[in-house]
Amino acid sequence: MILEKITAPNDIKKIKADEYDLLAQEIRRFLIDKVSIRGGHLASNLGVVELTMALHLALDLPKDKIIWDVGHQAYTHKLLTGRAEGFDVLRKYGGMSGFPKKIESDCDSFNTGHSSTSISAGLGIVEANRINGSDATVISVIGDGALTGGMAYEALNNASQLKRNFIIILNDNEMSISKNVGGVSGYLNNIRTGKFYNNLKSSVMNGLGKIPVYGDGLIQKIRKTKSGIKQLLIPGMLFEDMGITYLGPVDGHDVKQLVKTINDAKNLDRAVLIHVLTKKGKGYELAEKQPERFHGIGAFDIATGEPVKKSEKSYTSVFSETMLKLAKDNPKLVAVTAAMPDGTGLTAFRKRFPKRFFDVGIAEEHAVTFAAGMASQGLKPVVAVYSSFLQRAYDQILHDVCIQDLPVVFAIDRAGLVGSDGETHQGIFDLSYLNSIPNMSVFAPKNIWDLEEGLKFAVGYNGPIAIRYPRGTAYSGLEEFQSPVVYGKSEILYKEKDIALLAVGSMVSVAAEVREELKKMGKYVSVVNMRFVKPIDEECVEEMTKDHSLIVTLEENVLSGGFGEKISAYIKRNQYNIEVLNIALPNAYVEHGNVNILKQNSGIDKDSIIKRICACTDV
Amino acid sequence: MILEKITAPNDIKKIKADEYDLLAQEIRRFLIDKVSIRGGHLASNLGVVELTMALHLALDLPKDKIIWDVGHQAYTHKLLTGRAEGFDVLRKYGGMSGFPKKIESDCDSFNTGHSSTSISAGLGIVEANRINGSDATVISVIGDGALTGGMAYEALNNASQLKRNFIIILNDNEMSISKNVGGVSGYLNNIRTGKFYNNLKSSVMNGLGKIPVYGDGLIQKIRKTKSGIKQLLIPGMLFEDMGITYLGPVDGHDVKQLVKTINDAKNLDRAVLIHVLTKKGKGYELAEKQPERFHGIGAFDIATGEPVKKSEKSYTSVFSETMLKLAKDNPKLVAVTAAMPDGTGLTAFRKRFPKRFFDVGIAEEHAVTFAAGMASQGLKPVVAVYSSFLQRAYDQILHDVCIQDLPVVFAIDRAGLVGSDGETHQGIFDLSYLNSIPNMSVFAPKNIWDLEEGLKFAVGYNGPIAIRYPRGTAYSGLEEFQSPVVYGKSEILYKEKDIALLAVGSMVSVAAEVREELKKMGKYVSVVNMRFVKPIDEECVEEMTKDHSLIVTLEENVLSGGFGEKISAYIKRNQYNIEVLNIALPNAYVEHGNVNILKQNSGIDKDSIIKRICACTDV
Repeated sequence: MILEKITAPNDIKKIKADEYDLLAQEIRRFLIDKVSIRGGHLASNLGVVELTMALHLALDLPKDKIIWDVGHQAYTHKLLTGRAEGFDVLRKYGGMSGFPKKIESDCDSFNTGHSSTSISAGLGIVEANRINGSDATVISVIGDGALTGGMAYEALNNASQLKRNFIIILNDNEMSISKNVGGVSGYLNNIRTGKFYNNLKSSVMNGLGKIPVYGDGLIQKIRKTKSGIKQLLIPGMLFEDMGITYLGPVDGHDVKQLVKTINDAKNLDRAVLIHVLTKKGKGYELAEKQPERFHGIGAFDIATGEPVKKSEKSYTSVFSETMLKLAKDNPKLVAVTAAMPDGTGLTAFRKRFPKRFFDVGIAEEHAVTFAAGMASQGLKPVVAVYSSFLQRAYDQILHDVCIQDLPVVFAIDRAGLVGSDGETHQGIFDLSYLNSIPNMSVFAPKNIWDLEEGLKFAVGYNGPIAIRYPRGTAYSGLEEFQSPVVYGKSEILYKEKDIALLAVGSMVSVAAEVREELKKMGKYVSVVNMRFVKPIDEECVEEMTKDHSLIVTLEENVLSGGFGEKISAYIKRNQYNIEVLNIALPNAYVEHGNVNILKQNSGIDKDSIIKRICACTDV
Repeated sequence: MILEKITAPNDIKKIKADEYDLLAQEIRRFLIDKVSIRGGHLASNLGVVELTMALHLALDLPKDKIIWDVGHQAYTHKLLTGRAEGFDVLRKYGGMSGFPKKIESDCDSFNTGHSSTSISAGLGIVEANRINGSDATVISVIGDGALTGGMAYEALNNASQLKRNFIIILNDNEMSISKNVGGVSGYLNNIRTGKFYNNLKSSVMNGLGKIPVYGDGLIQKIRKTKSGIKQLLIPGMLFEDMGITYLGPVDGHDVKQLVKTINDAKNLDRAVLIHVLTKKGKGYELAEKQPERFHGIGAFDIATGEPVKKSEKSYTSVFSETMLKLAKDNPKLVAVTAAMPDGTGLTAFRKRFPKRFFDVGIAEEHAVTFAAGMASQGLKPVVAVYSSFLQRAYDQILHDVCIQDLPVVFAIDRAGLVGSDGETHQGIFDLSYLNSIPNMSVFAPKNIWDLEEGLKFAVGYNGPIAIRYPRGTAYSGLEEFQSPVVYGKSEILYKEKDIALLAVGSMVSVAAEVREELKKMGKYVSVVNMRFVKPIDEECVEEMTKDHSLIVTLEENVLSGGFGEKISAYIKRNQYNIEVLNIALPNAYVEHGNVNILKQNSGIDKDSIIKRICACTDV
């Protein structure tokens, strides 16, 4: 095995050029093997094997810096920097992260996770090198999907002024997680398909006779001329116009060509974009055909591509089905996603109601204000988005939706701990960042039925409202409790005395289990499914202050600014004489790993909760 | 006066075409007169007089929709929709807003305030029209400055797919508040100066011989060819490449030409960008020469342009001076602004340390991650930004700065109530949105000295830290209290008993005044300058629970998720037996108006606070 010779950064430079293809094959086999056992991101990593090899050949790591946009495509990079063993504990608690992590290696220069940050970070590093007197090379690797994100453009716009070298590699595979959308994507596609070279000469001849100066109502004529002249364009003029030097397109699976291009690019004293064409899933036929399915994946059978474990019904699929039902009866209902029709469960909606479905690309900011625009005209947009990605649109929620009190529904998936994706993807801040936004309402379902009913309620509600539900299997228990969803009202599951558990969303089922255990210890326990975190059901909370000596709040969100602190402050403000125990995640980032382990470590699992309650009640 | 004939929407259509110039003159005179008395935005409004007239001539309001990006340039629009009288109470409490407001007029179709939202909102309205079966025309008017903002690109990218008419007017005046920066700005400048037409023919001839295909290390050659072929470009190819039809450039001060162009554009079944060239400050010589000074301005003398009231020393200028001092001794200190060198007080820094100063354009997201990149290499970036604009970068703070615990300083100006700009600009959420972000520290100075020392401390601190200070005059009182700034520690100004006032930033001086009054009533009052809102000085809070029967928290931030709730939750958690009164802004948006009036209405002025304390203590 050639791969075995690589155990440290720059080891790849010892490999002979005629063995590159073999090495690439071995890397692919390694990645497929490991991910098939452990799960992880596959298709994107298979696409950048040669590109990563080329980067490692052309650069001097860790002195030179690579910033991986999003970062889930850094597996080969991890392998080439001596982290092969990490793949046996990939994304496991205490194991290797699925994203670049500075603490793992000096060769991981900047942590990523969310999209479209790499050019900004890279440009910052370039300017720092100037001030620090370092001549290190800086390369940001960004996908064509991530290029849809506005901050990538902000950074390109800024990078154009640079008088130093800065290399941006556009890893163009026509995909974000799903197929890319939008004008830039179309533009890149034109480059890819060579349209720019067609009819070059005849177009010039056509174009020359008609120097286009606007002014005489000749719009149609000018349009024609333009599309003629357009053919004259050499690839990358879009970037050149922004002040970024364009090189490419380059075959992203030709190591030698890539190395040469990178080395050439290093000689330019400005920002250079190298347009690299890659194939997502490359080298694994099933992934090439269905890159979406092999984007992020659990353990699977290599021969068939089938998952080892059959997945259970998720909240995402409950959302998906409920949306179909609601849209059938409500012609004003529209759905918006930022490049995640599959992940958010909107694929069925897209198929069934294509004219009311909008995939805006990786562009959460635009998605939210776009929805606000639709809501301002009487439509009912549902923005389906992951909790941690909605952070991007905090200002748009506050400024464009909520000031105008527009009826936009936020369907917040992956709220709470998501597990193996780690810090950047945990959805543990949404209760906090939504809590302080006026006019916003926040609902969290206890189970499948609650999500269905909550979504139905939200779609009928005339104001901004968020529904947050966790990743993974939808909870089907507590099905005997089906009190109708009423604005701002909680659902009391068990009304007893002594201890009142006020639980939010995923923590309701945990609260019910905690109650069972405490009952065995002879305690009387009430359980409330809060449903609404905003506004709080103050009447219910007040009622719970009677007949109880301890209120326990339970939420899968950081403590600070979340549900529990709000209840504590409410109790304090009203001087109710009752003790409050806040069960929440600590005010800290939560690393990757199995969700159950993370919950235990964070003290929000059943046993930890029981212990903490018993400590409070001196038993 | 022709202007007097216009008292309702569409009245302008009764004006004869040969009177347009006169009308424009009258409008300018009106605006200059009113703003010179009341203050407001001037230069931007003078620039779009003819453009607004043309929009009102070409459209049928309120059926058709205009979305004004940012919105402070909508004065002529207000005038032409019958709101002349409003200019006597412009930006005053209860008076007319300086921004579009749906509640003011049916002709204000979407509220704006922050930059770069108009294309998203406009596109949403277009899609809603499709679904609702409306044939109304939708026009978003966006400045070339706002075009730097990433979400504008996200929206353009999305708009390219449209098969319906949507008009985007690019109001190109080469300015945001300051001179624009970045590649797109340079590109627009090339169009403006007609560079695209130069040497058209000879360039084609040069270009033809060298069909550029990348591959043989001919970078230099290709570069040459490119810049040759570049001349061939007709204007607007950047937008055409993104899939947006480009028309222009058009003289933005030629009403007839503008009307014609808008009407032509209406016929196209897709997204069309009309590139309009305007002059900021047009028609008022002083404003033409110094558009920055006449961007947002208080009452001034029309003849000299001098302000009526001399402004007192602001926190912004204290920040500005302190930065100069600190940068002199610290070569690693760099400063970042998102298009507001003047507003944030960085102009002096730019002049003195040009190589360590970065204006990234209206691009808060990029600004923060760019700073994170610099911090990752040992620099000490200070991002100077207004509180409400930093909302845009919530995710970048959380995801790019704080997960990696990078030492970026956020100098948050305009924190608290800002007054006449209203809802969109009040800086009343930052304590809430920063509070829940792990690793972030938050400091608020009580006076000039505290800001100087706090900034000095922050620059020396090895982690993310925000300093938030209000708009307007810097408080110079309480100068006798100069205890050194220590991480996480508060400063006890008066230690007595009974009542403890725990105050944040601007509320410290109010607390001192409240104390004076309460003393007259025979009460003993302690006053604490908290300084750090995050982390809380728990030791101090604990101490205050002794010898006192009431803790009062005071902050200029919404209650929810702010300082007070945190103290209440802390007190509750630790079961300290003491009453807590939270003085904060209500959980609501705060309209425009004089800050003192707003404070009274919100119950955070001295008298309201005294009343509420007395009610608590039953006196």
